[in-house]
Amino acid sequence: MQSTERSQLRRLPKRGSHDEKVIHEILDATFVAHVGFCVDGQPFVIPTNFGRKGNILFLHGSSASRMLRELEKGIAACVTVTLVDGLVLARSAFHHSINYRSVVAFGTARKVEGEAEKLEALRVISEQIIAGRWDDVRLPNAQEMKATSVLEFRIEEASAKIRTGPPGDDEEDYQLPVWAGVLPISMRPGQVIPDERLHPGAAIPEYVTRFKTGD
Amino acid sequence: MQSTERSQLRRLPKRGSHDEKVIHEILDATFVAHVGFCVDGQPFVIPTNFGRKGNILFLHGSSASRMLRELEKGIAACVTVTLVDGLVLARSAFHHSINYRSVVAFGTARKVEGEAEKLEALRVISEQIIAGRWDDVRLPNAQEMKATSVLEFRIEEASAKIRTGPPGDDEEDYQLPVWAGVLPISMRPGQVIPDERLHPGAAIPEYVTRFKTGD
Repeated sequence: MQSTERSQLRRLPKRGSHDEKVIHEILDATFVAHVGFCVDGQPFVIPTNFGRKGNILFLHGSSASRMLRELEKGIAACVTVTLVDGLVLARSAFHHSINYRSVVAFGTARKVEGEAEKLEALRVISEQIIAGRWDDVRLPNAQEMKATSVLEFRIEEASAKIRTGPPGDDEEDYQLPVWAGVLPISMRPGQVIPDERLHPGAAIPEYVTRFKTGD
Repeated sequence: MQSTERSQLRRLPKRGSHDEKVIHEILDATFVAHVGFCVDGQPFVIPTNFGRKGNILFLHGSSASRMLRELEKGIAACVTVTLVDGLVLARSAFHHSINYRSVVAFGTARKVEGEAEKLEALRVISEQIIAGRWDDVRLPNAQEMKATSVLEFRIEEASAKIRTGPPGDDEEDYQLPVWAGVLPISMRPGQVIPDERLHPGAAIPEYVTRFKTGD
């Protein structure tokens, strides 16, 4: 993937990548992004859901959303996703680290206008959050479509950063009797909470009971 | 907490708060923030660790970090934290949502200069990630301190947003035989991976085996 000054990997480039496959895999492992934009030099960072299709990230929200209204002007935007994979506990404070995967993507957004394109974008977002759900639910009616704004953010350039593995301590610190290692952390589903007004014929779908994220 | 135009809650203000206690609780429930800043109109959003003390968020990293070098100029910055608590599965696509807690904080940063202040800031960051660790490890030496840059980001204004609870469907959709409810999601620790070169006298600390995050 293309890289200019803004996506150049300066710090610890060995942890970085501009490989499109690596970038897509990280994007596909989550459904929450942090979107950055500037208004008169003031940065805003807003968490939002997204869905990826090629090098496009679809964003959606209320038609009244400040973020979407700013982004649809075509201003420069930055979309960042981060997955925390573990705490890296070294023998020295200095060598502590986090195992993580992140992507910082630069580009601009435009409004998705056509009804069919908009619906497809919403499907992509829904499937990225929980695959299988879209086919089960009542789809948006005309009024709901009107109340929903959908943007496509086209990735112009992006970089990925990944840290994995054990701590790397200074040689002389290995003799210290300090416990060291990795404490893995991941996003995991808990016990489902069925809605109180569930229809008696509504069985819990397999895509809910088998839900996984982070891979 | 103070609020002007930039931290005004426009969308769904019932989900929002400017209450300092609410804001601090959300910040204290995690250790990863997304930091936004603008360089010539180009936004950057970078994931980083932080530690809170009052209305200050300490950030740290390599002295060569682009983010820290930009922020220490005192430019406008935005620090956002997000905790995903669950998927809200409604009967209609439109009413799907995410249970989450987020804080968007605006302010500026300055470099922490004194050695004692810097060390204390590093302690605060370390304790926010994994409380108890700091007292066990070899503390930074002069060279490591020099290689580390520490910034204090002072929160000038901030807003919190929280969504909890079940889906809210349109009345006529409750008769649909579509399963609905909440699938809780949380960051959870997995099985620890002890370092291969562990000192025989290094027992696993309780703060590792009992580690929790997200609360």
